[in-house]
Amino acid sequence: MAQSDMSTPLLDPDVQAEQLSVLGPSEQRGASVVCILGSGDFSRSLSSRLLACGCRVLVGSRDPGRLQPGLFPEGAELRTQREALQALVDSGGTLVFLAVYPEHYPSLLGLKPQLSGLTVVDVSNASSLKEKGPSNAETLARMLPSCSVVKGFNVLSAWTLLTGAHDGSRQVLVCGDCPSAKSSVLSLARRLGFSGVDVGGLCASRAVEEAPLQLFPSWKAPLLTTGLLFVFFYLYSAIKYILLPYLDRFENNLHHLALVTVNKALPAAALVVLALVYMPGLFAAVLQLYRGTKYKRFPDWLDHWMCVRKQLGLLSFLCAALHAVYSVCLSIRRASGYMILNAAYRQVQAGVADSWVEAQVWRSDLYLSSGILGLGVLSVLALTSLPSVGQALNWREFTFVQSGLGYMALALSVAHVLFFGWDFAVHPEAYQYYLPPVLVLSLAPPCCVLVGRLLLLLPCCSIRLDKIRRGWESERHRRTEKRRENGDTFGDV
Amino acid sequence: MAQSDMSTPLLDPDVQAEQLSVLGPSEQRGASVVCILGSGDFSRSLSSRLLACGCRVLVGSRDPGRLQPGLFPEGAELRTQREALQALVDSGGTLVFLAVYPEHYPSLLGLKPQLSGLTVVDVSNASSLKEKGPSNAETLARMLPSCSVVKGFNVLSAWTLLTGAHDGSRQVLVCGDCPSAKSSVLSLARRLGFSGVDVGGLCASRAVEEAPLQLFPSWKAPLLTTGLLFVFFYLYSAIKYILLPYLDRFENNLHHLALVTVNKALPAAALVVLALVYMPGLFAAVLQLYRGTKYKRFPDWLDHWMCVRKQLGLLSFLCAALHAVYSVCLSIRRASGYMILNAAYRQVQAGVADSWVEAQVWRSDLYLSSGILGLGVLSVLALTSLPSVGQALNWREFTFVQSGLGYMALALSVAHVLFFGWDFAVHPEAYQYYLPPVLVLSLAPPCCVLVGRLLLLLPCCSIRLDKIRRGWESERHRRTEKRRENGDTFGDV
Amino acid sequence: MAQSDMSTPLLDPDVQAEQLSVLGPSEQRGASVVCILGSGDFSRSLSSRLLACGCRVLVGSRDPGRLQPGLFPEGAELRTQREALQALVDSGGTLVFLAVYPEHYPSLLGLKPQLSGLTVVDVSNASSLKEKGPSNAETLARMLPSCSVVKGFNVLSAWTLLTGAHDGSRQVLVCGDCPSAKSSVLSLARRLGFSGVDVGGLCASRAVEEAPLQLFPSWKAPLLTTGLLFVFFYLYSAIKYILLPYLDRFENNLHHLALVTVNKALPAAALVVLALVYMPGLFAAVLQLYRGTKYKRFPDWLDHWMCVRKQLGLLSFLCAALHAVYSVCLSIRRASGYMILNAAYRQVQAGVADSWVEAQVWRSDLYLSSGILGLGVLSVLALTSLPSVGQALNWREFTFVQSGLGYMALALSVAHVLFFGWDFAVHPEAYQYYLPPVLVLSLAPPCCVLVGRLLLLLPCCSIRLDKIRRGWESERHRRTEKRRENGDTFGDV
Repeated sequence: MAQSDMSTPLLDPDVQAEQLSVLGPSEQRGASVVCILGSGDFSRSLSSRLLACGCRVLVGSRDPGRLQPGLFPEGAELRTQREALQALVDSGGTLVFLAVYPEHYPSLLGLKPQLSGLTVVDVSNASSLKEKGPSNAETLARMLPSCSVVKGFNVLSAWTLLTGAHDGSRQVLVCGDCPSAKSSVLSLARRLGFSGVDVGGLCASRAVEEAPLQLFPSWKAPLLTTGLLFVFFYLYSAIKYILLPYLDRFENNLHHLALVTVNKALPAAALVVLALVYMPGLFAAVLQLYRGTKYKRFPDWLDHWMCVRKQLGLLSFLCAALHAVYSVCLSIRRASGYMILNAAYRQVQAGVADSWVEAQVWRSDLYLSSGILGLGVLSVLALTSLPSVGQALNWREFTFVQSGLGYMALALSVAHVLFFGWDFAVHPEAYQYYLPPVLVLSLAPPCCVLVGRLLLLLPCCSIRLDKIRRGWESERHRRTEKRRENGDTFGDV
Repeated sequence: MAQSDMSTPLLDPDVQAEQLSVLGPSEQRGASVVCILGSGDFSRSLSSRLLACGCRVLVGSRDPGRLQPGLFPEGAELRTQREALQALVDSGGTLVFLAVYPEHYPSLLGLKPQLSGLTVVDVSNASSLKEKGPSNAETLARMLPSCSVVKGFNVLSAWTLLTGAHDGSRQVLVCGDCPSAKSSVLSLARRLGFSGVDVGGLCASRAVEEAPLQLFPSWKAPLLTTGLLFVFFYLYSAIKYILLPYLDRFENNLHHLALVTVNKALPAAALVVLALVYMPGLFAAVLQLYRGTKYKRFPDWLDHWMCVRKQLGLLSFLCAALHAVYSVCLSIRRASGYMILNAAYRQVQAGVADSWVEAQVWRSDLYLSSGILGLGVLSVLALTSLPSVGQALNWREFTFVQSGLGYMALALSVAHVLFFGWDFAVHPEAYQYYLPPVLVLSLAPPCCVLVGRLLLLLPCCSIRLDKIRRGWESERHRRTEKRRENGDTFGDV
Repeated sequence: MAQSDMSTPLLDPDVQAEQLSVLGPSEQRGASVVCILGSGDFSRSLSSRLLACGCRVLVGSRDPGRLQPGLFPEGAELRTQREALQALVDSGGTLVFLAVYPEHYPSLLGLKPQLSGLTVVDVSNASSLKEKGPSNAETLARMLPSCSVVKGFNVLSAWTLLTGAHDGSRQVLVCGDCPSAKSSVLSLARRLGFSGVDVGGLCASRAVEEAPLQLFPSWKAPLLTTGLLFVFFYLYSAIKYILLPYLDRFENNLHHLALVTVNKALPAAALVVLALVYMPGLFAAVLQLYRGTKYKRFPDWLDHWMCVRKQLGLLSFLCAALHAVYSVCLSIRRASGYMILNAAYRQVQAGVADSWVEAQVWRSDLYLSSGILGLGVLSVLALTSLPSVGQALNWREFTFVQSGLGYMALALSVAHVLFFGWDFAVHPEAYQYYLPPVLVLSLAPPCCVLVGRLLLLLPCCSIRLDKIRRGWESERHRRTEKRRENGDTFGDV
């Protein structure tokens, strides 16, 4: 904040004092005059925001006469690029925003003398994710070696600038090689109501330029996994319950495709994906136990897996919620009405006054109860994934929710499936065509996770693990380390 | 931040250095003594917060002896107004908060000498939205011309000050004509854990004073639209399915009023409102295509419409979600039980063993599936409307969700309605009394939107539109502009 | 921010100007070199974040040779503790993070000379909530009297530091006795993308150290209350509808335990808890009316109660939502199918063609309607409890939602219960075994609240209350106050 007047040579302390008392603090001097080169949407929105925050805005256009009067907000000073830069320098400002497309950067070469010594903020985005070579900002820095090029503000759209968050929770990634230039851009971002984040030198600019083009990068693998699991279970169910019965005895169950089969695949996918959330934690614990230290990096696949647990959990919740909705809809669809009517007809014909089966009543009540509670717990978990909720939790609360409630949801889901399937999972008929029922397949991963977790809770494991996580290292690990340092991996020292 | 010690005349550089090294930075000197005039709730809460953040707090009351001892937090120094101001000046502070009702401002005239040169923060709200004339802050600024009046902190309630957000996401609107005074208030806001937003000069103070009185200003038009649509469809259904059949053949369907008719009006309103979300975007695209430029403002009605798309989308989601709940409840209400029993009786009497109709089963499964998926996609859309979620998305992700998923939800909803109505929308009986069924009416707007969108995707439109959005302007537009500039709108140049 | 170079003695103004123009602003000098003592997880994550924000990081380890090369991010300078501190001082830095367990603090005594004059940030947590005596930071401050000890950053986990919020909404509690040291830590926190909150002197450090150990402290009482109410209603229902009928006439209703009885207890608990949300507000109003002033603290129990209204409201919403899900599930469980089939059988045997009862149809439609709407309104209330949504509301909107919509939800819930129970709440049979039905019990508190609220809306109360809330005090109160001041509580003056 205080850099611009600091870097001005002080002619005389008394004069300086005079100046300062007249002009006010540095914030009112250096940062409050800003020049924007270019007159497109971004330039317009940025100038509105700057004016609203009390800055003086100089807009440099190639042809200021051609701009319609109402386009720019009142107070913005429209000039030619050269005049705008000159006015910036005259009023002691240093910040120039470059709101032109990267393909027009060469046109700036004519402004080199005017730009010399100024801080140029490159707000451009990458044109695609595939590009190689220097980033736009790096190209610019080579073109204008006498300027301090700072990359930033590109993550904001014109729309966000005009209407968006004044609450400081929208982040602006900034990078650059000149600390003071970067610092003044960061403080301007803060003044405009954004949260400036310093992400390093100009070599980070490619990542900053590509940031607005990324499409949910952290969701790709989890979405693919969940999608493949769903497709697998859907096809498996379709083959086992529709195709094979049709080939075998010409049973026509095609109408199951739209709801019933989907509702077999959804809970199976939800259960397996939920198990996948807790599996990497177990692997990590086993690895730490085996290595006897936590001061060793996990293999890359495990690191990546750990990082997508939140996404996997949300997708599992999505599948489970859809499963609940589908289950309710199963009872309101037309087919269910026909089945009840036909059953009533058969009961009347058979003369059965009471068809009540106590065991079935208990079974259905129990699987519904455990299902509701499991989904309820999962909902709380999903809720804490909301940034604003999760950030209000401290570490212990977060662990309690993510680990404690998570395992509770897993256990309730397993109970839900067991109650649901207790009378036919063990029945040989359920294994027709030598294919186990879907629910048996989907139970395997969560059961492994639950057993693994219980084993790790045994005192022999948990005490050692606690020690390791407090920083203790096993003798064995230390010896291996020593050997490695001495270049002697197999022999004893 | 650094202004207060900057504006102090520097007696001697060496002495200054000495002082600074002893006293610490400016933040610890200027801003850390704050005076509050007034002893009400706001004063109490503000002093608690200031004390918690390490400031020294001087409370000036008209009658400090009358205040109960436990009311103010420990550490707040209770004095008369005159003494408090004197103590503020003595300790080098400049900030005075004015926590008295605007009707008592004239009582401050007696303190004019003490207030001279200080920064006075007016925290009052407007007493109503209808007021004309100068704002409270402007009145104050005229009364105390020797003070720097800053408007701010009024958007915070006493409650928020005491318990609320320390996370920097609660914004404090600040305006004023003296940049350095405003800057010190903004930095104090930040220090107290709020996000200070500079909204300009004191002329903006009316808007700031009225901000806490607004009741969902951006929701009025969308709520009204949705409400009117719902009422229209409700009355239409009531007339077509209840009133006319009663007048015609004395059919008593009155019990449909509570659930069935509501559940006819809700999905119709949801569908039309969802279409209204995507209609202004189409209009804007057509306008840009026609004008051949994007550098012209849209008409006001279109601008306003574009700005309430989020609210319309959320209301559409609300209607759709209620429709889903109502639909499920239709099957658990008593009438549905009676209907099943009566149907069973009739089936037994007719001796029909199997009432299964394959086409109806498919129909119901398909409309349920498309409905669930449509609502699911709308839920994701609604989720990204949460500030904390939406702000985590970059521009491409936001566009993908709002536009891509939005059109997907619209298409699924249309499919849901088509599957639901396929067998009776084309039946002449459905058009009894020359009134088309509700679902036919509600399908018209979304179908127009979908067709319009598909037309815009044709290469002839989309390529031109892309060019226009990258800043290109058509020859025709340029010629028109030229003519207008020459004051010759109709003749050729 | 500007403190560190301010406190450096100025040798010569011209030299200083030279230096400053070369070195850039203070932020780049003082804060940009940071030393971390310790080499655990926290140290690693902190150094990554510091490096990403452009700081120079010196890591002091007891045995830097033993650390694996890939553990620390590239750019971190690994040294012995002594060397790291020396390098910090040499490059003009002052900030030392202490990332070692408190039990190892005594090992720092050997570094006393190197640490002298530096700012030491203690990032440790309390080891348990039960501890007495000085906090870790206080112990440290006694050990190192020549250092400025600042407590802070302990609320961040290694994980959050590495991957977490860059959006300034994650708060870092900081306290300490030296204002300039605290200020530099706060500004570093802001620079790392967190929101630094100054919570006072070092005496607040115990609370800061315990913050990460708290497990939902504000939820304990509300959870307990809701849980006890649920258990009470569950047992009451089980006794009245299962145990006593069994003892009385050997009726076996045990299968009701899993779903039916839970679904009796849930709505009762939801209703009573919702009444508990609005009760303290009524008590407060009555107390203010009685005392004739608002300038007196409420009794502690009322204060605590007022502070947990949000939690109570959310728990009430949770119970209501679960009740809705359970109610839907009641109709899809096996028992409901059996009951329909048996009813159909009976209807056929009795030869009843139409079993329709208009009153029952209306009753069920009305209680479903009011229930859906009540839950809908409660959902909107719950939504505004999300931090990011609630913070976007102004005071009038918040009051409208919390009070207006809240009472609407309460009234709709009461209507829902009344419609549901209208035909059997007044039936003597419902009071079998002299036990009133659950719904009658659960109606009492909300009805009291609604009546109380209506009474307070009477002009005689509401006008006086408005006056009191604008600061007016009754004569009676003033007289009491006077007497108390004169130490004469009973006699007249």
